[in-house]
Amino acid sequence: METTPLNPARRRLLAGSASALAAAGLGATGIAQASDAPAKPPAPAAKPLPPYAAWKDADSVIVHTPNTIETKRSAFGDGIITPTRQLYVRNNLPPPNPSILDDRDAWTVEILGVKQPRTLTVGELKTLGVETMATVLQCSGNGRKFFPHKPSGTPWEVGAAGCVMWTGVPVRALVEYLGGVEGSPSFMTGTGGETLPEGLDPKTLLVERSVPREAMQDAMLAWEMNNEPLTLAHGGPLRLIVPGYTGVNNVKYIKRLAFTAEQSPAKIQQTSYRMAAIGSKPGPDNPSVWGMEPKSWITAPGADRQALKAGRAVVRGVAFGGMHAVKRVDVSIDGGKTWKQAALIGPDLGKYAWRQFALPVELSAGQHVLVSRVEDSEGNVQVEARVENADGYVNSSWRDHGLTVNVS
Amino acid sequence: METTPLNPARRRLLAGSASALAAAGLGATGIAQASDAPAKPPAPAAKPLPPYAAWKDADSVIVHTPNTIETKRSAFGDGIITPTRQLYVRNNLPPPNPSILDDRDAWTVEILGVKQPRTLTVGELKTLGVETMATVLQCSGNGRKFFPHKPSGTPWEVGAAGCVMWTGVPVRALVEYLGGVEGSPSFMTGTGGETLPEGLDPKTLLVERSVPREAMQDAMLAWEMNNEPLTLAHGGPLRLIVPGYTGVNNVKYIKRLAFTAEQSPAKIQQTSYRMAAIGSKPGPDNPSVWGMEPKSWITAPGADRQALKAGRAVVRGVAFGGMHAVKRVDVSIDGGKTWKQAALIGPDLGKYAWRQFALPVELSAGQHVLVSRVEDSEGNVQVEARVENADGYVNSSWRDHGLTVNVS
Repeated sequence: METTPLNPARRRLLAGSASALAAAGLGATGIAQASDAPAKPPAPAAKPLPPYAAWKDADSVIVHTPNTIETKRSAFGDGIITPTRQLYVRNNLPPPNPSILDDRDAWTVEILGVKQPRTLTVGELKTLGVETMATVLQCSGNGRKFFPHKPSGTPWEVGAAGCVMWTGVPVRALVEYLGGVEGSPSFMTGTGGETLPEGLDPKTLLVERSVPREAMQDAMLAWEMNNEPLTLAHGGPLRLIVPGYTGVNNVKYIKRLAFTAEQSPAKIQQTSYRMAAIGSKPGPDNPSVWGMEPKSWITAPGADRQALKAGRAVVRGVAFGGMHAVKRVDVSIDGGKTWKQAALIGPDLGKYAWRQFALPVELSAGQHVLVSRVEDSEGNVQVEARVENADGYVNSSWRDHGLTVNVS
Repeated sequence: METTPLNPARRRLLAGSASALAAAGLGATGIAQASDAPAKPPAPAAKPLPPYAAWKDADSVIVHTPNTIETKRSAFGDGIITPTRQLYVRNNLPPPNPSILDDRDAWTVEILGVKQPRTLTVGELKTLGVETMATVLQCSGNGRKFFPHKPSGTPWEVGAAGCVMWTGVPVRALVEYLGGVEGSPSFMTGTGGETLPEGLDPKTLLVERSVPREAMQDAMLAWEMNNEPLTLAHGGPLRLIVPGYTGVNNVKYIKRLAFTAEQSPAKIQQTSYRMAAIGSKPGPDNPSVWGMEPKSWITAPGADRQALKAGRAVVRGVAFGGMHAVKRVDVSIDGGKTWKQAALIGPDLGKYAWRQFALPVELSAGQHVLVSRVEDSEGNVQVEARVENADGYVNSSWRDHGLTVNVS
């Protein structure tokens, strides 16, 4: 499993990237959604699930490409935890060979930037401690479909998100075991274990993400998702979970976790996942896509476009604060003109989980626009308008996420 | 879908029960575990999953019979909610025809013993309100394997239990919608919609259970389990959930919910699921199996009988209070001679859910007996010794549930 050393001096710059990609079979399916390829709406005919995710529930998902699979708005249910069979998939590269799951406990991860740097197996990690937590996992580009300038990348609507239960060892327990962080590094940098094609500058494709060091406080190296050993599609045998941060920061197949002075030099850190003005070329000076914003959307009724009858109905949806707990959710059935507070239903799984909400309403005949708006414990309210940006990241607009239903 | 009227005067007493059973194909597979047949240990060779549960994870379960499928002790994971694929199955009768799921919202349930009795569809129920809750679902006979007198019924070890998320309408909201309970009935009685064989007294087989009326406060009519529409194997399209009560009280395919002065005259209420002395014939004078007791067991390490190496390990398990929240869990690695308090891990899903616990230990070479003991919020402590009873119900003994591991 080749990974790029953090030391930039050891990197090779090679010509012929495009042909190398093609040779590695990473063309259309592998990285189209990570590259600057033009946005492609999902084809009208349902695409088949790729082999590594063949066990997903085909009725609950929209297959955009083999590496981008979205949960349907109507398939979230009201039980908080998104079943693994329904959870979205978004891989920046094709997953490693499934044989890496043959002996899960033998997978190794190198820990650097601590007083006693070393490589540990998953088997060893399991002897250090165990925690379980629920987090919202959301692709940075979820909601991209609503950007009118048609940014490159997958046109996700609401379904590149789920609420997932993770089990693993807290990063802080691991760091403590290794003597603590060395010095005062500003970042925690995780490196994915995807197989990189030969003959190409690894930094072009390597999945290596840096987040502010403080994120280590709640981060975890997880080997279980929703009570089952972590699947290949979702980063098994070991994944870095950084609660509150968008999906890409939760590095799959993690091979190295380092406390570093600088952010990763990989392209995915330097120029991708940056909030840049439309028309400009994103770069390291633009803000990185890290923490999530307060966001909510309606999931029922009418998300599957079934005919609705006038009368009583219960409007439901999901809401999260991103970095903070949900305080309240308001719902409007007239597109935001008037609002009523919804009830939060079900147990509270912690500040990084989402809450499900419900509001009984009377729906009259005609067209209604159902919208929701969440406020977090710090008083931050979900924005009405998206923050425009070149690549269409972090769309939290309540107006964009409205659900139009026809009632007869 | 024939169900028995509650009025005993309308019941038929028929001779030839055994042959009627045989004619209905309910012999060995259908009701052996509900009858007085002698206990049968699981066959050494793995049995296949029955068609209605073919989607279960075969590696996680032990198939006793087509209607009794147990979760392996090693397959609980540490993520609290038991995935549906791994959850045990125990049906008192073969499930109804799968066609009852063709139009879930059209399923009807009759509500009696309220001021405005009527029949509602699931579609209507969904307009009345929605709640989500986590409960421990545990077969009354879980732990039966440890009774030395070999009671009749399935010899469950620890795996006729799971922690499940339910979504549906609270019974109290439904009752309020129908004008409240009529009079002062003592019981809430649920009637299952299984197809009953012709030519047999329905009360012999009908799944109709009564619980104390107070249980309605937290009860629910659920259409979703773990965020997915309720499967046929687990009682879909609609199931009565009575938190804190053993599995049988959570009536599947519920067709009628009634507030009644008397307990159901069905055999499953009158003589089955009663705590009777060994050697005696259980009857209505014996206490009914209703609420669960504080109970816990170890799930790792060593539950799958893999070789353990001396050194650090994290002992894990599940613990619940039954009717009350978990307060603390203690763990012993020497069969109960010395104890240490374990940490409760993961979010608290409410008093009816289970908690998972973890305790880092040093395991020396040799044989160890790992046991756990839970205390609930009311100060009730998990019992050391089982309460002996004829049919082997409600075994909560921490000693019986110990896990012996060999460390080298």
